[in-house]
Amino acid sequence: MGLSYFQRNDRDARFVLFEYLNLDQLLKYDAFKDFSRDDFSMILDEAYKVARDVIGPTLKDGDEQGLKYLDGDVITPDSFKDCWKVLAENGWLAMQVGPEYGGQGLPQPVACMVHDFFNGANMCMEIYTGLCAGAGHLIESYGTEEDKALFVEKMYSGVWGGSMGLTEPDAGSDVGWLRSKATPDPSSGNPRIYKIEGTKRFISGGNHDLTENIIHLMLARIEGAPAGTRGVSLFIVPKIWVNPDGSLGEPNDVFCGGFEHKMGLHGSATCTLNFGENGRCRGILLGEPNSGMAKMFQLMNEARMGTGNLALGVAASAYDTARLYARDRIQGPPFTDRKADRVPIIRHEDVRRMLMTLKSGTEAMRGMLAKLYFLADVAMHEPDPAKKKAAENQLDLFTPLAKAYCSDFAYELTREAIQVMGGAGYCREYPAEQYARDIKSASIYEGTTYIQSLDLVGRKLMMEGGRVFGGWLDEIKTFAAAHAGDKDFGPDFGLLTQAADVVAEYAQRYMGYFADGRLALIPLSSTRFQECMAETLLAQISLEMGLLAREKKAGVEEGSADALYYQGKIASAQYYCRNILVNVFARQKSLALEDTSALDIPEEAFI
Amino acid sequence: MGLSYFQRNDRDARFVLFEYLNLDQLLKYDAFKDFSRDDFSMILDEAYKVARDVIGPTLKDGDEQGLKYLDGDVITPDSFKDCWKVLAENGWLAMQVGPEYGGQGLPQPVACMVHDFFNGANMCMEIYTGLCAGAGHLIESYGTEEDKALFVEKMYSGVWGGSMGLTEPDAGSDVGWLRSKATPDPSSGNPRIYKIEGTKRFISGGNHDLTENIIHLMLARIEGAPAGTRGVSLFIVPKIWVNPDGSLGEPNDVFCGGFEHKMGLHGSATCTLNFGENGRCRGILLGEPNSGMAKMFQLMNEARMGTGNLALGVAASAYDTARLYARDRIQGPPFTDRKADRVPIIRHEDVRRMLMTLKSGTEAMRGMLAKLYFLADVAMHEPDPAKKKAAENQLDLFTPLAKAYCSDFAYELTREAIQVMGGAGYCREYPAEQYARDIKSASIYEGTTYIQSLDLVGRKLMMEGGRVFGGWLDEIKTFAAAHAGDKDFGPDFGLLTQAADVVAEYAQRYMGYFADGRLALIPLSSTRFQECMAETLLAQISLEMGLLAREKKAGVEEGSADALYYQGKIASAQYYCRNILVNVFARQKSLALEDTSALDIPEEAFI
Repeated sequence: MGLSYFQRNDRDARFVLFEYLNLDQLLKYDAFKDFSRDDFSMILDEAYKVARDVIGPTLKDGDEQGLKYLDGDVITPDSFKDCWKVLAENGWLAMQVGPEYGGQGLPQPVACMVHDFFNGANMCMEIYTGLCAGAGHLIESYGTEEDKALFVEKMYSGVWGGSMGLTEPDAGSDVGWLRSKATPDPSSGNPRIYKIEGTKRFISGGNHDLTENIIHLMLARIEGAPAGTRGVSLFIVPKIWVNPDGSLGEPNDVFCGGFEHKMGLHGSATCTLNFGENGRCRGILLGEPNSGMAKMFQLMNEARMGTGNLALGVAASAYDTARLYARDRIQGPPFTDRKADRVPIIRHEDVRRMLMTLKSGTEAMRGMLAKLYFLADVAMHEPDPAKKKAAENQLDLFTPLAKAYCSDFAYELTREAIQVMGGAGYCREYPAEQYARDIKSASIYEGTTYIQSLDLVGRKLMMEGGRVFGGWLDEIKTFAAAHAGDKDFGPDFGLLTQAADVVAEYAQRYMGYFADGRLALIPLSSTRFQECMAETLLAQISLEMGLLAREKKAGVEEGSADALYYQGKIASAQYYCRNILVNVFARQKSLALEDTSALDIPEEAFI
Repeated sequence: MGLSYFQRNDRDARFVLFEYLNLDQLLKYDAFKDFSRDDFSMILDEAYKVARDVIGPTLKDGDEQGLKYLDGDVITPDSFKDCWKVLAENGWLAMQVGPEYGGQGLPQPVACMVHDFFNGANMCMEIYTGLCAGAGHLIESYGTEEDKALFVEKMYSGVWGGSMGLTEPDAGSDVGWLRSKATPDPSSGNPRIYKIEGTKRFISGGNHDLTENIIHLMLARIEGAPAGTRGVSLFIVPKIWVNPDGSLGEPNDVFCGGFEHKMGLHGSATCTLNFGENGRCRGILLGEPNSGMAKMFQLMNEARMGTGNLALGVAASAYDTARLYARDRIQGPPFTDRKADRVPIIRHEDVRRMLMTLKSGTEAMRGMLAKLYFLADVAMHEPDPAKKKAAENQLDLFTPLAKAYCSDFAYELTREAIQVMGGAGYCREYPAEQYARDIKSASIYEGTTYIQSLDLVGRKLMMEGGRVFGGWLDEIKTFAAAHAGDKDFGPDFGLLTQAADVVAEYAQRYMGYFADGRLALIPLSSTRFQECMAETLLAQISLEMGLLAREKKAGVEEGSADALYYQGKIASAQYYCRNILVNVFARQKSLALEDTSALDIPEEAFI
């Protein structure tokens, strides 16, 4: 069993969950009526121990031992199998889903905080578990009663794994070009059973030895279906066929041709899978023919939010590593007192600045993700249709930001953590450099940053005729106006207003570009627009948390642990706005120039 | 022999060397009177082949086989040894130094372009060779005739390696706290020979099997010397003692306790060295007692420029990798033509934008480094004392930018390259992810980014009463004024002027902070000031090159390879200013807020 590097302070997770979010609203829903705040608190306690004692020790094993490939099988490190057993047996795989199939049915913000710990302990392990819950949930949502009875509980309980098969060697971001095909299999006597053929690449959890079976949810085109995404269907393709009585049958002609050797995530099996090489692969159609893309989007959206959660967990652990190192490592005096003795580098001004970037950045992401998962629960459980719809819309609007921005930001934050630690940060003795290598993946899978930005600009801004987006901007303006000139946050609300104006101006411009046919300006700038919008949202949430912390601080004893925490939280809001939100203004300058130099030159000029 | 990934187009190196720089000025110096432009062109041709055929094949071997440690010895991959032989025997180790000791004595901008290739082929290999030349040059500069005769030629010719020993387990950025000590050794009969004791850490090339001996240049304190950097002396400490006749003597009690396992640079031996564990380590004092720090700064400054050169080479190779992939990889249609067929992703707008970031960024760095190396030659060879001093001053002013900014920027650019390539960029099948892992080191060694920013703000801005810095700002203003309203670059010169104003304003503020004792605001913002200044310099150089390219374009046939190249060069200048230089304005906003939240909260609030 390896050393565990997980050493989070859980105070901020508790603040977000129990102080920032209005949990009472969730607790009044039927689905959660049997839970109390105390339950959640105990769950956080337990999750913390699991992260530290069960998942944490797998981090370096995954990275250093990695995976082995043996005749079509992928072998994980032993500690992964031990860890899996504990997670599966204690119900940690399917926290936020279907209690009727063995899931815990927890409110999603609680699961988000648990995942914050788990992801920070080893995101590799979370990729496997997330796919069990996610793929199982897709079957729970769209499967027949028979499908649900056969698969869901086994997946939620971690007896069987899951995977999602979209990407092919020749179809990545352009998934509509996939070539995998499905043909009816009359010999099966079941019209929902098809023969499957095709190759999928970059399939996370595509093969491994953590579970006795793996249920692949894969996209394929039924012969004769329309081209593009409109003709794509979704299939349940078990690695080992499942008999109608639930017992395991024959291997299903799914061959794992190997796994990718990656920058990080060495413990996560990213596989190439060949389906039906011997003509004996069968799949069960999930839902109607040609409805696969829309259904896959449920899983995709969950996975996109989940990616934000991964980014949060890893960035937070990078902060933990850097902060604890900075407390221990003694070096020369601070700049402001050159004649002093050596001090822990946490007293060096530049180190303090970098730690504050890490602190305020991870806290902002934590607040945002928890809030979005809160909206997801409202969207699912709220009886009032208007409120339900409003929550659903906001979640849809912000999901691309949670995916794209958090992924990129987390990578940047790992860089700051390495820099705080100097040479030690660059060495594998500490996990900081691994966090960087692991999390770089997040900006690529489940739709790259660019794909998210197109989803945002091309679909989300115009939802409900633009009223969802406009409503959010109004909310910010009202919020900022209410606190203009605040004694602690005056400049910050000023910056927030200006940033929201930039975001509004750009959305306006985009409408113009669509209308005038100046389309090229959209994809040339959409990732930057996405960043502006995300930073504005993160600033809003940081300030909401900062105001609350100030209020709470007034009620606790000066110098107490709580008072210190709240003071830090106020500073986080200020720091975030004054040092990170300001990036909006660089992008504004750039966007306004409408530069097309990247497209104006011929392709051959790129040498 | 591994596959070579080196596949640079050398057109830009040739533009910088033969069109942008005024090589005639250098060729009139005595030191270079035997060279012609044709010689340099042939050298570039040869260097290209060496990078591709000799160094390139070591890239993956270094990363994947890495180093082995065996009873105190560090074993490099076989291909490293083969490569070394070719480099050493053909004079590639000491291109820009002392012809009287076997160096080629090339102008430094030529060596810079060669290193741009070599570093891009495998920066690991360059770290070893750079230390031979650098450490040898320090002995050439400050050694006695006997020292020079004994060591320099052997080092320049790669028979012996070199290392620089500053960092200790408890002294990193605060090198003045080092504990290694030197005591006179009367038994040696030579007052310059001392007994050496101490431990050095993070010593690049501290042990390896590429050479029969390694000459460590290490800092230690002679017993009784003052505390801090003022009491530090420099010693020549051979791994194997060198007899007065040049033959190798006994091993010199320098034990390599192991090497670091790092994020990247797996082929570069970053060693912990124990000197004198058995009381038998001897070193030769180089120069006067207590003058070590100042002398080490010669090597440090060379190494800092060299680090910029490493960053350039690696970033350029990341661009090469991404560009070539983007030409090959077919995916869906561009955004502006959704109904079109699939195209190579180089036609996708967002990919084009990222490639342009890579193109304009590497070209700007290439122009800057070559120009600074040009100044280094003027500083060394110019007979007119005023011109010589002016060049020396400019080089001093800009060296921290070349080191810090290029290091950080190169890491960012490797991220862009990975993102262009999507999943492929994240896999080890391509070298993009290795470039990211390798180059991350550059922002740490030879003085971190923060240390560079303090050198800039604390020393360089005030050189000659601020006239060097002020002179540069005036130069930019004159340049921008002369081209205001230019038909191609009008907005760019506008941005350049504004950026220079920001830089000037901040230098002014810093003077105020020093004067008012508001010292904390300096280290809290100095890295960002450094970035503003670097981006302004890179924009200036990009525009100088852009104007020249436009002029040249007018003289070549339309549609010719040269015309395309020049067109791309014009676009690079525009793109750089409109998309990268604009970052200055975010930092301006931040700097003006004088935020001290990172220092205002107590240390305990960092949880």
